[in-house]
Amino acid sequence: MDKLRWTPISFTKVTLSDAFWVPRIDANRQHGLEAVYQQLKRTGRLDAYALDWTPASNQPQPHVFWDSDVAKWLEGACYSLMNHPDPVLRSRVEDVVDRILSAQAEDGYLNPHFTVVEPGKRWTNLRDKHELYCAGHLIEAGVAHHRATGDSRFLRGMQRYADLIGREFGPGEDQRQGYPGHEEIELALVKLYRHTGLEHYLELACFFIEERGRSPHYFDLEARQRGEDPKVYWPKTYAYTQSHRPVRQQREVVGHAVRAMYLYAAMADCALETGDRALLGTLRSLWGDLTAHKLYLTGGIGPSRRNEGFTARYDLPNQNAYAETCAAIGLVFWAHRMLQVDLDSRYADVMERALYNGMLSGVSLTGDRFFYVNPLASGGDHHRQAFFTCSCCPPNINRVLPTIGEYIYSRKGDEIAVHLFAQSSVEIVLSEGSLVLCQETDYPWDGVVCFHFEMDQPRALTLKIRKPGWCQQSHIYLNQDSEPMDCQIERGYWTIRRTWQPGDLLRLQLAMAATRVYAHPRVSSDVGRTALMRGPLVYCLEAVDQGVPVHTLSLPRSTPLDSQFEPGLLGGVVMIQGTAKAVDEDAWGGNLYQTCPPILRDVPFRAVPYFAWDNRAPGEMQVWIPEAVDGE
Amino acid sequence: MDKLRWTPISFTKVTLSDAFWVPRIDANRQHGLEAVYQQLKRTGRLDAYALDWTPASNQPQPHVFWDSDVAKWLEGACYSLMNHPDPVLRSRVEDVVDRILSAQAEDGYLNPHFTVVEPGKRWTNLRDKHELYCAGHLIEAGVAHHRATGDSRFLRGMQRYADLIGREFGPGEDQRQGYPGHEEIELALVKLYRHTGLEHYLELACFFIEERGRSPHYFDLEARQRGEDPKVYWPKTYAYTQSHRPVRQQREVVGHAVRAMYLYAAMADCALETGDRALLGTLRSLWGDLTAHKLYLTGGIGPSRRNEGFTARYDLPNQNAYAETCAAIGLVFWAHRMLQVDLDSRYADVMERALYNGMLSGVSLTGDRFFYVNPLASGGDHHRQAFFTCSCCPPNINRVLPTIGEYIYSRKGDEIAVHLFAQSSVEIVLSEGSLVLCQETDYPWDGVVCFHFEMDQPRALTLKIRKPGWCQQSHIYLNQDSEPMDCQIERGYWTIRRTWQPGDLLRLQLAMAATRVYAHPRVSSDVGRTALMRGPLVYCLEAVDQGVPVHTLSLPRSTPLDSQFEPGLLGGVVMIQGTAKAVDEDAWGGNLYQTCPPILRDVPFRAVPYFAWDNRAPGEMQVWIPEAVDGE
Repeated sequence: MDKLRWTPISFTKVTLSDAFWVPRIDANRQHGLEAVYQQLKRTGRLDAYALDWTPASNQPQPHVFWDSDVAKWLEGACYSLMNHPDPVLRSRVEDVVDRILSAQAEDGYLNPHFTVVEPGKRWTNLRDKHELYCAGHLIEAGVAHHRATGDSRFLRGMQRYADLIGREFGPGEDQRQGYPGHEEIELALVKLYRHTGLEHYLELACFFIEERGRSPHYFDLEARQRGEDPKVYWPKTYAYTQSHRPVRQQREVVGHAVRAMYLYAAMADCALETGDRALLGTLRSLWGDLTAHKLYLTGGIGPSRRNEGFTARYDLPNQNAYAETCAAIGLVFWAHRMLQVDLDSRYADVMERALYNGMLSGVSLTGDRFFYVNPLASGGDHHRQAFFTCSCCPPNINRVLPTIGEYIYSRKGDEIAVHLFAQSSVEIVLSEGSLVLCQETDYPWDGVVCFHFEMDQPRALTLKIRKPGWCQQSHIYLNQDSEPMDCQIERGYWTIRRTWQPGDLLRLQLAMAATRVYAHPRVSSDVGRTALMRGPLVYCLEAVDQGVPVHTLSLPRSTPLDSQFEPGLLGGVVMIQGTAKAVDEDAWGGNLYQTCPPILRDVPFRAVPYFAWDNRAPGEMQVWIPEAVDGE
Repeated sequence: MDKLRWTPISFTKVTLSDAFWVPRIDANRQHGLEAVYQQLKRTGRLDAYALDWTPASNQPQPHVFWDSDVAKWLEGACYSLMNHPDPVLRSRVEDVVDRILSAQAEDGYLNPHFTVVEPGKRWTNLRDKHELYCAGHLIEAGVAHHRATGDSRFLRGMQRYADLIGREFGPGEDQRQGYPGHEEIELALVKLYRHTGLEHYLELACFFIEERGRSPHYFDLEARQRGEDPKVYWPKTYAYTQSHRPVRQQREVVGHAVRAMYLYAAMADCALETGDRALLGTLRSLWGDLTAHKLYLTGGIGPSRRNEGFTARYDLPNQNAYAETCAAIGLVFWAHRMLQVDLDSRYADVMERALYNGMLSGVSLTGDRFFYVNPLASGGDHHRQAFFTCSCCPPNINRVLPTIGEYIYSRKGDEIAVHLFAQSSVEIVLSEGSLVLCQETDYPWDGVVCFHFEMDQPRALTLKIRKPGWCQQSHIYLNQDSEPMDCQIERGYWTIRRTWQPGDLLRLQLAMAATRVYAHPRVSSDVGRTALMRGPLVYCLEAVDQGVPVHTLSLPRSTPLDSQFEPGLLGGVVMIQGTAKAVDEDAWGGNLYQTCPPILRDVPFRAVPYFAWDNRAPGEMQVWIPEAVDGE
């Protein structure tokens, strides 16, 4: 499988200069990281590392998942430092690192909750207590810190922790054959392996993955060891943690959505590193189930609040959608890893969908207010918050935004794959010299993308450019040619093998019209409804833009959709507008019910990108708009 | 206000012989009362009166609302005995009465929970503990038992309890100025007053009503006396118990729907008995709020599971509707009482709507399986049950069905008002002799109703016949006249003052076509949708009758609606059928989303009365059907 192995080009090599992502990355750096840091401080998450909590103290009790919040913020801060050095943030990072390291035990263990709240109970409840999950995030932060600062003290500490875990868990008789209730450490161990080159970290990641769901079930065993009945388990099924059967026998995405995404992403990592084709087959089945049955138009996933996760096929309610921000981020992680192991535009299409819609809706334009839950309709009572009691999403946003550049390109030898479109330049070092590939574009507002090749001399190079699934008409022009190129398409990528000349210009024209989208007839919530998309962006109707209540609007199929860039709106967005039908409330009278049909009248409507909703006055919102009924 | 005072004609005077209600009354007698009795026994509700529960015993702990379940069953059984003597049921009734009386304390107090589970805590938590609510149901059962058997031993016991309550509660310094968290005793005390003629029961009912919501708030006081913080109260507002302000200052229906209905019904009783016009004004405001903003098409009320009650105006979700069966019954009680104090067909319209739809959906055709919650749409996972942990609804059905006859007529002197249509005869004793008024009709399946006057000699009598709000064309013919009568309409009742001749025949023709109904534009759940009604009945699409999934159906506005009586279906119902549009799933392909609109094709649909749904194979159900989108 080695020939399939692609590698993302690091965000540190990609210089974004676009009007879309740069302001978001800046807002995250200037406001998001600051806001989350203040919340970590305010809520006691940082003070927890002093290990001075006692039942008698007035301090908040360190929670089992607090470390993950701190670690994700730290990871995000380090990524931010890598492209944007900042002495103030750097010293804050070092202070947090000091705090964390001060709480590490002699043997490498690191978890304030199990140190002060439940001492002596290490590793006794992997099912519920997030211990390995927190360890994973700390390890990821350790790698990020080393990359950002070159200082290895934090990484060394986290390796000591990873080594402890490696002694504790494994196939040996004196080891635990356990695995985390909330996956994450698998991703972290692969990252640690890639950073250090130490194979035992990869082996441990694979061990956790392979052990998952085997019989006898580890969560049964550990529950009995705690003196508990394993059947007393609120989700009632191990599908909640994707451990209902061994992972290689799983064919349907189930359970808690974030857990599922982190597992599948780690499985993709392992498939890539080990060349395991069978594992890749499992992942393709899971991917097929997700994308054919369980994916919101926005890339949001996990419709149910009850399990924060998956339910039945086609169960995609709009107003009650859970669609956690972290789950969309997890989907980005999984899709990105699938791209490296199994390059195909269908993964990039979903990655783009989740990035621009379901993930980005999770953060305000100012970068410091967040959605945990991302419904596709609202009666007006859903609003962004500064933080949450369970606050995984804000620091997850913190760590994704600085690394957006990483999702644009992958490379395999002298092949370059372009997954996303964004004005940027990337330096690519080839065997015989380097080149700079520049994208010039107003994407996602405009579908023209120009690729410039900046180099000293001609270079043979295969360029693979994703043909977006949303696009119905597209052409590529080379230099001044008036006829489009006749490009081969390989698994959704235009593939151009050529010796490029200095100054070569490739112009991609993606027709980007506002388009109606429809959902599968089994999605009962969306029958009779249409959604508007333009390019990769899902649109919505927000109350503040309409003259009438959003729920009274319907859209005749014949209405022309007019797109217009509004520089002053929501940081500059393309709005879609046209004429909708609205139930005329004035003509109705006072009755709650009547036999005379409501009168519809023409009203203007304006739709804005879904990611940007709830940044102005609160109110109703709908992605899926009823299509207007026939004749009055 | 005495001139406004109407009196219902007792169900014991009305002999129903129709094909609609008689089978339901029979099913309740033969199966419903039996099934609920067995559940009362099985769950320990009857054994609780042995008062031998201890914390160490293995018996189920007597719950604070158990007495109400037993009492409502007993009341229903007694009503059934009144029209259908049955020695087996009678002896069962006496056994239950014996059990209850054996648990009564010396001073008249009667409540197993507070006797064995929380001894010494009588009257310490009126807000939450249903003590006065249970007392009310016991008192109603006492009156019913006396009416059914002529034996006063149970009634005497319940009067002793009422007298104890009368000493405990009242305006005196040595009395408690409290009132129940769950209204009901007010209704019971008025009933007891009417049955015994003892005015202090009416006064106590009025005291409870007037005291409600005054400052300082009684629930605050008693919470502090319990050493609790009154603010620690899960509903967060006293609106939950309609005690957020004095009742005369209330203008909007709020809180727990059953509680609200029982309160308003008792207020109507008091207004009627005391001639209090101000109280009637309050009730009219509350009625207006309910019927203009908060009433399901089915007569169901209280959309929210959270408070089992009311929310904001126009908040009428379909699939998530709570619409408890008891709340529809409570609405029938309130509407019926409003009719007596303020005769107007708008009350009877709502009473009929709730009886035939929201109440009747609560019980299976077999009489022994129940809905607690009555949604207007289902994905297929909502089914009738034999009983519930909180099982107020089944015995409430038990006591309403035997008394259906009581809702048909009211009388004031020589005026007779006909509220409902059902094949039946009623004996009416006038000052100078009696007459029998017969209705001959196939209502609700057919709109022709013939009234026969059977009497020895001519009688002057004012007959008031309700002009149903659902009917768009109606005529009344006298005897063989070919021209319809030109009747005066007074507050929605055709009013015919006449000296009737023996053998007179009045023929009412109500056009009863299947009709599309629409909801106010502010009801966001119903925008773009239509519901089908025929006569008083709301219809629904049930999966078992369709060839395609219910949620894929939409109804073009132009589709003719064909009604047909199906004798073999659901005990004999009129079905509505026609041609709908369905999204063609076969033509769709496998994608979850696509830009090509779904193809609609013509399919036959069949709609059945809402009350009869979930009596066959489980599946999807919808009352509000999308109207088809324009041109393919």
